[in-house]
Amino acid sequence: MWYTKFGPSGDVVLSSRIRLARNLKEIPFGTKMTQESEAEVIEKCRTALHDLKYIDFSVMTPIEKQALSETHLVSPEMVQNPHKCGLITNDDCTVCVMLNEEDHIRIQAMAPGFDLDSCLDTANIIDDRLDCVLDLAFDPKFGYLTCCPTNAGTGMRASVMVHLPALTESGNMEKIIRSLSKLGLTVRGIYGEGSRALGNIYQISNQVTLGVSESETIEKLNQIISDLIEKERKLSRDIYEQNKLRLEDRIMRSFGTLTNARLLSSDESMNLLSDVRWGVNLGILQNINLESLSNVWYQTMPANITTAFNTQDATERDLKRAELLRDTLRKD
Amino acid sequence: MWYTKFGPSGDVVLSSRIRLARNLKEIPFGTKMTQESEAEVIEKCRTALHDLKYIDFSVMTPIEKQALSETHLVSPEMVQNPHKCGLITNDDCTVCVMLNEEDHIRIQAMAPGFDLDSCLDTANIIDDRLDCVLDLAFDPKFGYLTCCPTNAGTGMRASVMVHLPALTESGNMEKIIRSLSKLGLTVRGIYGEGSRALGNIYQISNQVTLGVSESETIEKLNQIISDLIEKERKLSRDIYEQNKLRLEDRIMRSFGTLTNARLLSSDESMNLLSDVRWGVNLGILQNINLESLSNVWYQTMPANITTAFNTQDATERDLKRAELLRDTLRKD
Repeated sequence: MWYTKFGPSGDVVLSSRIRLARNLKEIPFGTKMTQESEAEVIEKCRTALHDLKYIDFSVMTPIEKQALSETHLVSPEMVQNPHKCGLITNDDCTVCVMLNEEDHIRIQAMAPGFDLDSCLDTANIIDDRLDCVLDLAFDPKFGYLTCCPTNAGTGMRASVMVHLPALTESGNMEKIIRSLSKLGLTVRGIYGEGSRALGNIYQISNQVTLGVSESETIEKLNQIISDLIEKERKLSRDIYEQNKLRLEDRIMRSFGTLTNARLLSSDESMNLLSDVRWGVNLGILQNINLESLSNVWYQTMPANITTAFNTQDATERDLKRAELLRDTLRKD
Repeated sequence: MWYTKFGPSGDVVLSSRIRLARNLKEIPFGTKMTQESEAEVIEKCRTALHDLKYIDFSVMTPIEKQALSETHLVSPEMVQNPHKCGLITNDDCTVCVMLNEEDHIRIQAMAPGFDLDSCLDTANIIDDRLDCVLDLAFDPKFGYLTCCPTNAGTGMRASVMVHLPALTESGNMEKIIRSLSKLGLTVRGIYGEGSRALGNIYQISNQVTLGVSESETIEKLNQIISDLIEKERKLSRDIYEQNKLRLEDRIMRSFGTLTNARLLSSDESMNLLSDVRWGVNLGILQNINLESLSNVWYQTMPANITTAFNTQDATERDLKRAELLRDTLRKD
């Protein structure tokens, strides 16, 4: 899957994503939708993107839905969606069009590492294909019309997922979040609004969609994120130089726990994996592959464990999680 | 050295010791001693035990003294001893006669595991040799006379060092200490009076020396300790049966920390080694040798690390301790 691959600036940026919100002109928005109009959205989009795979999201079990959300294929909101809804994806899931989430259509394009430009290219291709055959709600003054006015305009949300152990550990994140906010960006934990930054992973995205172009938004985000990447890299080296032994001790302890524990909760393993990833970047841990770290990170999420091992029992899940982590890290 | 060997009931009992307090009739006791009388005690005993090795304890550095105390060759009190004092030992240090500790002569005989009888045999041989050529302070009614009246009579302190992780973890120790106390036994932490039970290791010894014979004292101690060993073994199996996974997790985490940490304090490593020893006894950890665990236990004590690596720096000590532990446990 794309999300386990190592991309540009992959030492800090895990993945990039562009989401475009679109709606059909002749169909009511949001709460005004009927079952018929929900079916109509799905039908029209399936026809327009007939060469891609359609997944009926409504018939999936809650755990299957959760598992897709854990790998960021669908939004957390989509999991709770009571409406008739569906997904259109390509084989490697770098594209996932959510149908009847908050808007009729939400095109998502994703890439490993720091690569918003290629995400935008991919999203634009899908957008153009839909635009050719469907009548999208577009206003010459306001741009694309969306269910929630905060998305109107470009309808674009560009986001990157970054791993910032050094900035977090040194207590810099609160200040950074405030200053990014002043620059019109939102910083959240790994699983959307209000979620904690488990494993020192943050999602950074643009807030403004009205009065700016897609390219302006991305250019600005690229610049700010590049700065942030450099800050993290420099601070990480500084912390290591200042007390090599202390950091090595901490990282090796985390590695020791991950490779020996018999029961690991999701929260604990995310924090330990954060240390191990940091250790790999600093060269403290060798022969460990960042891609397999990303892979096991997703594999050991609660719903992914539950579906893979067909168990709902919390202890059994912690046991399987510990097994998977041990096998992965020892093989490396 | 004897103290790293595996002896009878070595899963629970690390070592046994007999100490006989003796004094010379014609020389004043305790605070009444002069430098001349101190020298006289040493001279007389050296002559009596001329085939054994004499060590001038007074000229050792505080750290060297401390290192001998950590391996139980001398008492903690001996380290603080401001008087002219010395040791007479054999090659493997199973016998160590302290001269001018609290009493003129304190014969110590030690053995790995649970083996008070052989300790008494060894101590008696030394005692007999001294008795042949020296005039020991002995009263037909009170027995051997000692500096502190609590040792008068047999002058014998018999003690065993036991590792009781199951009884400690289940919160049973307070009750056991109270009941052993009623039976005339004293329970202390690993380094004498008032010391904490680091690493779940306890020293159990007789309190009474007056009005009982040596063999009665040892017979009683043998019986009580045998019961205690069985209690620990049974409880250990029960705890494991009741929640295999939880205990395996805990023990493997301790093993993971010991084999990966870069800095380990003395207290932390003792507690982690206690878990590893427990894990070996339960078969959770295989291919680990209890003898090398005992060996590294003593090697990593503060003064032993300091003398072995010639460093007084606390961080350097924690670093060397972690290295030694890693090497030992990984080699196993």
